[in-house]
Amino acid sequence: MTRVTVWNEFLHEKEDDAVLAIYPDGIHGQIASFLEKAGLDAKTATLEEPEHGLTEEVLANTDVLIWWGHMGHDRVEDKIVDRVQKRVLEGMGLVVLHSGHMSKIFMRLMGTSCDLKWREANERERLWVVDPTHPIAKGIGEFIELDEEEMYGEHFDIPTPDELIFLGWFEGGEVFRSGITYKRGNGRIFYFQPGHESYPTYHHPDIQQVIINGVNWCAESRKNYPAYGNHQPLEKIGRK
Amino acid sequence: MTRVTVWNEFLHEKEDDAVLAIYPDGIHGQIASFLEKAGLDAKTATLEEPEHGLTEEVLANTDVLIWWGHMGHDRVEDKIVDRVQKRVLEGMGLVVLHSGHMSKIFMRLMGTSCDLKWREANERERLWVVDPTHPIAKGIGEFIELDEEEMYGEHFDIPTPDELIFLGWFEGGEVFRSGITYKRGNGRIFYFQPGHESYPTYHHPDIQQVIINGVNWCAESRKNYPAYGNHQPLEKIGRK
Amino acid sequence: MTRVTVWNEFLHEKEDDAVLAIYPDGIHGQIASFLEKAGLDAKTATLEEPEHGLTEEVLANTDVLIWWGHMGHDRVEDKIVDRVQKRVLEGMGLVVLHSGHMSKIFMRLMGTSCDLKWREANERERLWVVDPTHPIAKGIGEFIELDEEEMYGEHFDIPTPDELIFLGWFEGGEVFRSGITYKRGNGRIFYFQPGHESYPTYHHPDIQQVIINGVNWCAESRKNYPAYGNHQPLEKIGRK
Amino acid sequence: MTRVTVWNEFLHEKEDDAVLAIYPDGIHGQIASFLEKAGLDAKTATLEEPEHGLTEEVLANTDVLIWWGHMGHDRVEDKIVDRVQKRVLEGMGLVVLHSGHMSKIFMRLMGTSCDLKWREANERERLWVVDPTHPIAKGIGEFIELDEEEMYGEHFDIPTPDELIFLGWFEGGEVFRSGITYKRGNGRIFYFQPGHESYPTYHHPDIQQVIINGVNWCAESRKNYPAYGNHQPLEKIGRK
Repeated sequence: MTRVTVWNEFLHEKEDDAVLAIYPDGIHGQIASFLEKAGLDAKTATLEEPEHGLTEEVLANTDVLIWWGHMGHDRVEDKIVDRVQKRVLEGMGLVVLHSGHMSKIFMRLMGTSCDLKWREANERERLWVVDPTHPIAKGIGEFIELDEEEMYGEHFDIPTPDELIFLGWFEGGEVFRSGITYKRGNGRIFYFQPGHESYPTYHHPDIQQVIINGVNWCAESRKNYPAYGNHQPLEKIGRK
Repeated sequence: MTRVTVWNEFLHEKEDDAVLAIYPDGIHGQIASFLEKAGLDAKTATLEEPEHGLTEEVLANTDVLIWWGHMGHDRVEDKIVDRVQKRVLEGMGLVVLHSGHMSKIFMRLMGTSCDLKWREANERERLWVVDPTHPIAKGIGEFIELDEEEMYGEHFDIPTPDELIFLGWFEGGEVFRSGITYKRGNGRIFYFQPGHESYPTYHHPDIQQVIINGVNWCAESRKNYPAYGNHQPLEKIGRK
Repeated sequence: MTRVTVWNEFLHEKEDDAVLAIYPDGIHGQIASFLEKAGLDAKTATLEEPEHGLTEEVLANTDVLIWWGHMGHDRVEDKIVDRVQKRVLEGMGLVVLHSGHMSKIFMRLMGTSCDLKWREANERERLWVVDPTHPIAKGIGEFIELDEEEMYGEHFDIPTPDELIFLGWFEGGEVFRSGITYKRGNGRIFYFQPGHESYPTYHHPDIQQVIINGVNWCAESRKNYPAYGNHQPLEKIGRK
Repeated sequence: MTRVTVWNEFLHEKEDDAVLAIYPDGIHGQIASFLEKAGLDAKTATLEEPEHGLTEEVLANTDVLIWWGHMGHDRVEDKIVDRVQKRVLEGMGLVVLHSGHMSKIFMRLMGTSCDLKWREANERERLWVVDPTHPIAKGIGEFIELDEEEMYGEHFDIPTPDELIFLGWFEGGEVFRSGITYKRGNGRIFYFQPGHESYPTYHHPDIQQVIINGVNWCAESRKNYPAYGNHQPLEKIGRK
């Protein structure tokens, strides 16, 4: 059974009653809940726990890590970011949600600013499937419609994705590469844009399905690693 | 005229007479020399200069930076790496040569270990062109043959390249993605594998041509930037 | 000087006065006109000319072919499609515009149905730049706005593009991969979505700039070709 | 259970006793045999059967088609190629082996010549894994070694693959993109280079594993399709 750790900074819920009303168990609690129903083994971890809840032991027992962060990005310690990056390169999957685009760990793995345009205007979003054969789009129709989301718009300052699965359309005139995948080392990464804290996005069944699919896809990482360093040839070679 | 800064750690030449005999003006001097002949404005910078020769002013006046490093990777200060990364994301081109694959700046921009297999056995390499329409392969035949190079072999722990231009074949049984490109922010990056310090690789006319082509390709970066942050919609929207 | 042949089926203009009013010299005439002003050598060819105006000689003297077709796709003879495909694989560039997505030549080079969603509703389109470093986006701001265009929407049944440069946003709720590139053989291909015959799209300066950029990018194809077939080894090998 | 049809032209085995000695049940029989052992439902079809064994009914009941052809490429009827292409675009997987690179169906789906360099010299090949996280490389070490194979060398005239999984190294000095994937329509395609008829390649356990993996990966195609054509907007739009 795939072991998922759902990490959430868990700050908005403590400071804003409107957010808490949508996510009484926190965003992490809500996500863990629907993952469990899908047969995954889901635990949670949050910013204000010791080591942000991401001890060596926790990460060693995590197949896929989900990351939701926003106002607390800077409070994540660099040594924990180092640890998470190391585990991704070893083969742990990573699902980065919404404002996690500017988390230290995502920027570390991308090498770019990961910046974008944004706007909070309660506007409609449509997420169009552009790669219908991809396992992450399994069970989804031609698009997902969200009555209200935060706008995230291009230019999104990321490396060229390995795969482009969802394109976001926003009522106010913008588009966004909303569902994208990357490989880094032995690990697989899925970034998925929806999920502003003040909307009930993680209660939407299609959004839940995509996150479940994303976890399953990221869990397929390899466990036996290439060797690096000095390597012997087929036979004696060279002309000196 | 494209302004190139050729950065070399310049350590092997000071410590090893055999290397100095091949590159009496340093690897940086040799590279700057053939770039100048190709009509480029080439300056040099080295590790042991103040700020490694990469002051704010130098970088502000550099269109493309070439990077050769090996034994001194750890001696490059993090604040200079930050500065170079910032300039790449702003649009400065970057050509990373040979053992620069494990330089701090390349690992920073890639997000992976950038590790590989290697062997020093004076063996033959063939660099095959797999993207003959690419400007970086202009003027090159079907392959470049080097009588002796250090073997660099897969698995090469890098993100999927945007473009794969050269594949390296080594006498002892290995292959390598030897010429690859990436975009990061507004900057373009070209990694090119040949150039071990104990072989006269940078005297080879085809290798010189590829580096000149690579500089020209990286110099095409854009100078006007997207805006990030809060963004106004087409018109009043939303339903709250 | 780059030699461009602008091919247009030239049927709508003959049948519909409203189209003729927008393009009194035909869509081909309008495109050739702004290419000439940009210093390119532009000729035209149309469906009802002998061999559709695409004789062996014409194609042999064409560096980049532009293709606009719609209601006459089926009237293009297969032997001419064979001829154009052969020239693209030899290195002629190809710019396919708007409804050319279902031309025989584009489908031939893609291998898919190239189908899509569409709607004629005089709606606004925004073309967002998602690859700001690409030469085809040179001189363009963050987006191009068209007051009215035909909607083209995903899913667009194409192979994964080599590069994604523009994403289209439509007022009615759709998105589209509107500016994309491919390499096929020695030839480069650029598909660009805007240009419905009943709107003055090819009079828009930004659209003109993108097409000029596209022609220049496609013209960079290589003229010396790889050898195929039986190939001799480095030296005697094998163990039989 | 995934339903596989193994198609082989089945000509070399009838004409050449040395080939028959290696594959007494034909190449198709050998491949079907190890697929069955892996729990797949494998049937066979050959060139000289009516409709080449690929009737509408057979294809309607095929999840993944494997293709081995060589001397008989031209004898495959175009209407059968049309039928297979249609099924791939609908979502049937396709595994193309070795000399199938110049089959009508592969060229049709690629749009290029699919040509390459080749040599029969009983030389050693090494297939290096360059994408260790890919499901098609599951269970394979860092490389597969074949004592003897036909050399296939670059330049391989194909579209840029969606994914590059294996790189081939040949004793005589060449490299090859030996394991590559594409998506076309709703179908997935895997091309795998080894398998010259005069070597016992399909008896090699690692080669068998890769083909089994490839079938499983291609079988993941989607069964519910996007709608194409005229599409209604969110609400009334437009300004005319």
